[in-house]
Amino acid sequence: MTRILGHNYIGGQRSAQGSLLLKSLDATTGEPLPGVFSQATEAEVDAAGNAAAAAFPAYRNLPAEQRAAFLEAIADELDALGDDFVATVCRETALPSGRIQGERARTSGQMRLFAHVLRRGDFYGARIDRALPERQPLARPDLRQYRIGVGPVAVFGASNFPLAFSTAGGDTASALAAGCPVVFKAHSGHMATAEAVADAILRAAARCGMPDGVFNMVYGGGVGEWLVKHPAIQAVGFTGSLKGGTALGRMAAERTQPIPVFAEMSSINPVILLPEALQARGATLARELAASVTLGCGQFCTNPGLIIGMRSAAFADFIELFQAQMAEQAAQTMLNHGTLASYRSGLEHLHSHPGVTHLAGATQGDRQAQPQLFKADVSVLLSGDPLLQEEVFGPATVLIEVEDQGQLAAAIRALRGQLTATLIGESEELASAGWLSELLQEKVGRVLLNGYPTGVEVCDAMVHGGPYPATSDARGTSVGSLAIERFLRPVCLQNYPDELLPPALQDANPLGVMRLVNGEQSRAAIVR
Amino acid sequence: MTRILGHNYIGGQRSAQGSLLLKSLDATTGEPLPGVFSQATEAEVDAAGNAAAAAFPAYRNLPAEQRAAFLEAIADELDALGDDFVATVCRETALPSGRIQGERARTSGQMRLFAHVLRRGDFYGARIDRALPERQPLARPDLRQYRIGVGPVAVFGASNFPLAFSTAGGDTASALAAGCPVVFKAHSGHMATAEAVADAILRAAARCGMPDGVFNMVYGGGVGEWLVKHPAIQAVGFTGSLKGGTALGRMAAERTQPIPVFAEMSSINPVILLPEALQARGATLARELAASVTLGCGQFCTNPGLIIGMRSAAFADFIELFQAQMAEQAAQTMLNHGTLASYRSGLEHLHSHPGVTHLAGATQGDRQAQPQLFKADVSVLLSGDPLLQEEVFGPATVLIEVEDQGQLAAAIRALRGQLTATLIGESEELASAGWLSELLQEKVGRVLLNGYPTGVEVCDAMVHGGPYPATSDARGTSVGSLAIERFLRPVCLQNYPDELLPPALQDANPLGVMRLVNGEQSRAAIVR
Repeated sequence: MTRILGHNYIGGQRSAQGSLLLKSLDATTGEPLPGVFSQATEAEVDAAGNAAAAAFPAYRNLPAEQRAAFLEAIADELDALGDDFVATVCRETALPSGRIQGERARTSGQMRLFAHVLRRGDFYGARIDRALPERQPLARPDLRQYRIGVGPVAVFGASNFPLAFSTAGGDTASALAAGCPVVFKAHSGHMATAEAVADAILRAAARCGMPDGVFNMVYGGGVGEWLVKHPAIQAVGFTGSLKGGTALGRMAAERTQPIPVFAEMSSINPVILLPEALQARGATLARELAASVTLGCGQFCTNPGLIIGMRSAAFADFIELFQAQMAEQAAQTMLNHGTLASYRSGLEHLHSHPGVTHLAGATQGDRQAQPQLFKADVSVLLSGDPLLQEEVFGPATVLIEVEDQGQLAAAIRALRGQLTATLIGESEELASAGWLSELLQEKVGRVLLNGYPTGVEVCDAMVHGGPYPATSDARGTSVGSLAIERFLRPVCLQNYPDELLPPALQDANPLGVMRLVNGEQSRAAIVR
Repeated sequence: MTRILGHNYIGGQRSAQGSLLLKSLDATTGEPLPGVFSQATEAEVDAAGNAAAAAFPAYRNLPAEQRAAFLEAIADELDALGDDFVATVCRETALPSGRIQGERARTSGQMRLFAHVLRRGDFYGARIDRALPERQPLARPDLRQYRIGVGPVAVFGASNFPLAFSTAGGDTASALAAGCPVVFKAHSGHMATAEAVADAILRAAARCGMPDGVFNMVYGGGVGEWLVKHPAIQAVGFTGSLKGGTALGRMAAERTQPIPVFAEMSSINPVILLPEALQARGATLARELAASVTLGCGQFCTNPGLIIGMRSAAFADFIELFQAQMAEQAAQTMLNHGTLASYRSGLEHLHSHPGVTHLAGATQGDRQAQPQLFKADVSVLLSGDPLLQEEVFGPATVLIEVEDQGQLAAAIRALRGQLTATLIGESEELASAGWLSELLQEKVGRVLLNGYPTGVEVCDAMVHGGPYPATSDARGTSVGSLAIERFLRPVCLQNYPDELLPPALQDANPLGVMRLVNGEQSRAAIVR
């Protein structure tokens, strides 16, 4: 790994105008790591936004094939980063190297998925309504629609996925795929990682002849507001806390020109255990759920934070087994000191609530996170108390016992929007649980049957989104190929001669994309 | 036409709890028309939102075919409204009966287009990634995505299209198509029209067995904030002023749960006259442009409010001809007194600006709108002065002369977001104007060549949208079938047995819709 320069990335150049220097910390020891990072000044953030704006016209008008090649080049550069890179990520995040290797493969795979999307061409959303010159009382002109990038995008990465949701993560990949230059705010929790990844992106950009400013990155804690308020920025991608996402949303709404914010924020991911499944495999479920709750120290957006069952002997047995399982789970080091402090504070709220009982978990100290199990009275949920609605980020979960189906429905209705909901049931009880599936769909972005929500597949059908506060815009996803749609907008071209049309809309359909032609889907060429 | 009851429409019932009674006015005489309308109370608005919420689960889960039949029934009911209905609309809006007949056909045609979209099934956005049980290191579960309605939608109609952008207009049609119940805020400018249309919708709902609360309507001026802040409302559609749309956007952003607002607001729709076209057909252009500026008293969102040409003898000749044409245009009655007052105020701003010259138009009185032509120095636009950026709603337009292509590009860059931009040119000069087409696409939702923007076709390829302030969300359109996407959100179903999947995602593809299956578009059934 090359020496850390720690300067901001602006229009293909490095810049360190500011006087505030930042250090990255070892997540396990809290000791400063080598290298200093220069917090961006307001002028530098402004220059980064301007560099992205300058790159936009050239970048958006590149053939999709060239953007695809750029994404693949980024993927190759990420895959080529050596063991010292992995070691750096591990030091900054306390995540194990196997996890980082896997996350790196996911991150480069994500870039390649978007390259595939660009070649497939459905992202164009091509629609053609041909002229009807003879129509009465008025002729119809030739109308053709496709989608273009919205403009420069500001991206704020997450701490818990230092690769897949960060510098070259899903938001960056989908924005670049859409033809939108990116200004990335480096996460303070892994600045050395961010630098290595930004270098990889810039090597790929140089290799593919991309315009300067296609990717920019700024360091620092107070720079987000300048970035969101920069007039060139046309959309924001964010993964993090409800508080952080809400603040960015307010800033974006207060701009002279308001812009959309796609913030993925807070989810408690309810898991509903149906009676027959508890009867048939309660012990297995207790073991698997405990593993899911504590996987990666519970630092997943889709970590199951609420487990609901109906009062029964089988549920009572399950609770006992689950309690024993949770009590056996080892403490783990969290991503950073702030994450641990938030976890402690979340636990304290649960401990001090009269409707909540502590069932398992060692006393939480100030080093590693101790897995915790609580049980709450269903009235806490039904009363609208925000306590259970707020994600406690870490290896903790809360059990709730409901009386019957009616109370189960009421409990689900009382939930805020979620990324996921999970139903665990036997085949027959699921067959009669259509009402539950339908109700859950109104609340979440993804409903799982007999699985655990912590695995988020990167593919076409994935939705990693959901109603507020899971995200700020339920119409988007931040994982999977649909993520590109957040950064596209439709444009209609009326009465254009063929030679002025973009290839996706030309008569001959030179890209061979599926198009909606006079209301029918077709790849056929058009004969004028 | 039946007698006007003037009560609010809540969950299939009529309600008049409030004490404030409203009268509709004759747009031409200002005299009150028969009938009184009961302004909704806060409790009534609350009840309307709750009625929509209660209807949502049943309505969204209806087969798309049933929603299509409902939209067609609305279309039939609208077409069956008699001459007395048309006469009422004309009295409330001062629009001629031929226009209202045409607009009614457009409105019912729009309902039928969305019925077609529902049957076509692409609105589902069906995506299937099949399970990969053997994949290493981890198996992939079966993942299927489709789109569902976001929930109840609040719609605020426009005054200038009392049918096509109002009670049963494009926002209502697209929300109902998406499976979203609607609460409509009746426009104060045409309350009797709104009542007749709401009655038509409710007759169709009864005929098709739709759930109570699928469509609700409230009267009154101060009720919008209650509606936007109602917790059940999940999205807002609005057509109107920049001030009104911005206010709704702020209210929506301040909610505990922020919701998206699709507001179509302000656009000046620049028309760029290229030199050879001016040379070849300046007189025709002057005549056609004057007709477009004054069509329907200039009361179109896409009215050409800015005309840009390059300094030349041909442009000077055109100005002279256009001036003469504009001077000959007749005064017309506006939609209501408020619209006329806004027009007068907009004209006063133009008259009093030192960079603006008045070229044609009779003195504006307080009865009918007088068509007006101004010429502004390009520096007014380039300096960022908001004067020229703000739509003057009515039969007025502003000419701007630029020095050369560089200044033309600068003038376009200085423009805010627009619904449309138009290029008028001869074939050869257009062939070398690719840069202009590309630049304009960054600014607008629709670029027209050699046409006039005031015709907005209702079809698949139309975009009636664009960057702020043309709309509050450039990713949407309020005209054309793509409008449905504003009110849909994706949901992923993981590891579902076939019998629990919605038909659009079932293996056999019983609806025959195009789906993205393992990355390939296909209508084929899936063999498990």
